[in-house]
Amino acid sequence: MKVLMETIRIPFEEMKSEFKRILLNYNFTEKRAEKCAEVFAVNSLEGVYSHGVYRFQRFVDYLGKGYVKPDAEPELVCSAGALEQWIGNLGPGILNADFCTNRAMEMAKENGIGCVSIANTNHWMRGGTDGWQAAKKGFVFIGWTNTEKNMPAWGAKDTRLGNNPLVFAVPHKEEAIVLDFAMTQFSYGKMEATEMERKELPFPGGFDKAGKLTSNPSQILETRRALPIGYWKGAGLSLLLDILATVLSGGRSTNELSKLDAEYGVSQVFIAIDTKKLGNVPAIQNTVEEIISDIKNSVPDENQSVIRYPGERVVATRKENLVNGIQVLKKIWEEIMEMKQP
Amino acid sequence: MKVLMETIRIPFEEMKSEFKRILLNYNFTEKRAEKCAEVFAVNSLEGVYSHGVYRFQRFVDYLGKGYVKPDAEPELVCSAGALEQWIGNLGPGILNADFCTNRAMEMAKENGIGCVSIANTNHWMRGGTDGWQAAKKGFVFIGWTNTEKNMPAWGAKDTRLGNNPLVFAVPHKEEAIVLDFAMTQFSYGKMEATEMERKELPFPGGFDKAGKLTSNPSQILETRRALPIGYWKGAGLSLLLDILATVLSGGRSTNELSKLDAEYGVSQVFIAIDTKKLGNVPAIQNTVEEIISDIKNSVPDENQSVIRYPGERVVATRKENLVNGIQVLKKIWEEIMEMKQP
Repeated sequence: MKVLMETIRIPFEEMKSEFKRILLNYNFTEKRAEKCAEVFAVNSLEGVYSHGVYRFQRFVDYLGKGYVKPDAEPELVCSAGALEQWIGNLGPGILNADFCTNRAMEMAKENGIGCVSIANTNHWMRGGTDGWQAAKKGFVFIGWTNTEKNMPAWGAKDTRLGNNPLVFAVPHKEEAIVLDFAMTQFSYGKMEATEMERKELPFPGGFDKAGKLTSNPSQILETRRALPIGYWKGAGLSLLLDILATVLSGGRSTNELSKLDAEYGVSQVFIAIDTKKLGNVPAIQNTVEEIISDIKNSVPDENQSVIRYPGERVVATRKENLVNGIQVLKKIWEEIMEMKQP
Repeated sequence: MKVLMETIRIPFEEMKSEFKRILLNYNFTEKRAEKCAEVFAVNSLEGVYSHGVYRFQRFVDYLGKGYVKPDAEPELVCSAGALEQWIGNLGPGILNADFCTNRAMEMAKENGIGCVSIANTNHWMRGGTDGWQAAKKGFVFIGWTNTEKNMPAWGAKDTRLGNNPLVFAVPHKEEAIVLDFAMTQFSYGKMEATEMERKELPFPGGFDKAGKLTSNPSQILETRRALPIGYWKGAGLSLLLDILATVLSGGRSTNELSKLDAEYGVSQVFIAIDTKKLGNVPAIQNTVEEIISDIKNSVPDENQSVIRYPGERVVATRKENLVNGIQVLKKIWEEIMEMKQP
């Protein structure tokens, strides 16, 4: 157990170039391999290890299985002013999401707002990536994806809803405020890690066999009855996000994509609003700063908690990991280093 | 207590005309009084009594105090293609929201999507009203409002966030699927009603004096530490909705509007997407139907719960109340009947 948990620190540039080296063994152009490697490495650098270094092997596995097509590019299906529908042709989710975010920003520059939906795309790894990108360029960003079934409807035992992550981002000084959250109270990754540490979740995270709420991760991993945030509210939000992603893109619903042999071919929506088009441009940064500063002046609770805004930790983690390297399980990193040609 | 809880049934048309009679005593045109009265009556008809008949007296009180200006109309501040900023001049929230929703739909007819923000407006009573209206005309609707402070930031004791209701709506046959939810797990109205019935909330709804989660409504009403849905996630969503409403409209933030002597002059956002502009128009209703039907086929939990989609109860309640009349506390209805000229 101790050996399995041994970690090492990998410098950002080394991680990125290792990822790129591996991707170039597949049918990636230099530029596309560079972008994918960068996003996997940045996600790790910024503390989202689950959708960075720890997700890389599965991504490569999906390339091998043909679920993700390295050279596929999005195609325009339908265009109506500030609204466009694209089809992703099973291209890498990171590249398709990057494309859609850029396209939504271009459309927002023209029309104030731009909405791009995409069908038959793949896991974007971390929607926050696109939120950060857009917000750092001065855009408000709203985006979401559907996923395979992994959460029950409210009042149900079996999983028929996705956890359908939703991202809101807004510019903040040279950085951004980015909220990137899924509809389950805790991710399966978090529950598995908590189980490995033989701990309890900090709050109930799902239902046990008897249908009672529990903080015991093993019991939830057994029933697969993960709790939606806000109970019926998060279940409702998940449903609406799935319906909207499916209707707007003309792509697969959570139900449709759960019939496939793995999670691929999902539906996504990207909305960008150009804040430079607003009448109150000069005041915006003060407005945001005043809101954040008021929140941070809250009276802390009994645990003397630090009040943080969404995205605040990302900036701190990025700085720390740039200096010290990215902490990775030694075993996983060795496996990645040994990844050979397909 | 028994007398206080006595209820009567008021026919929809009677309720609406009574509301209209009272509003005409203020500076409303015939048409504007009709629309406001209709929305208060429809909210009651559809089961949202807290923002229908039980809110009417406070609305009239705010008219008297000048917080709501019956004859004020919205003015355009800034226009950029599919993005517009308006100022509400403290007009009735219902009328301003109706205006913004119609404007967003007009813009969506032109550009596929339309986004209207409004500063210095008033409580929309029930954002779902606008969601239903847009979705029944074939538009996807996303809208939200900020509110005064009524929820703590995550890790805080004092309330600095609003409960900032968020609405998602999508067309569904002749009706709609409408999710209309606030960021607190339970509304203060629900907690007060549960306290009056000397019951416990079905799930923890906030923190007691010792900072522990509790299902006891009295303890939460005492601390005012209402629980955000999904804990830190709902607190984050509330913050982002406030920042976005404030930045996009150039209006007051939750912090700013909490400095006033009552809740007025809020900021709101209305986004409409014209589904008739999409490439997959013929398939849309089938898509929605398939998703709903899959959810409804879930395996029910231990309580044999009925699986419902957001908005389903509204249609059932509307039908029942149209036949039987709208159930109202007799005492409240008598007070409304006696409302005289200002």
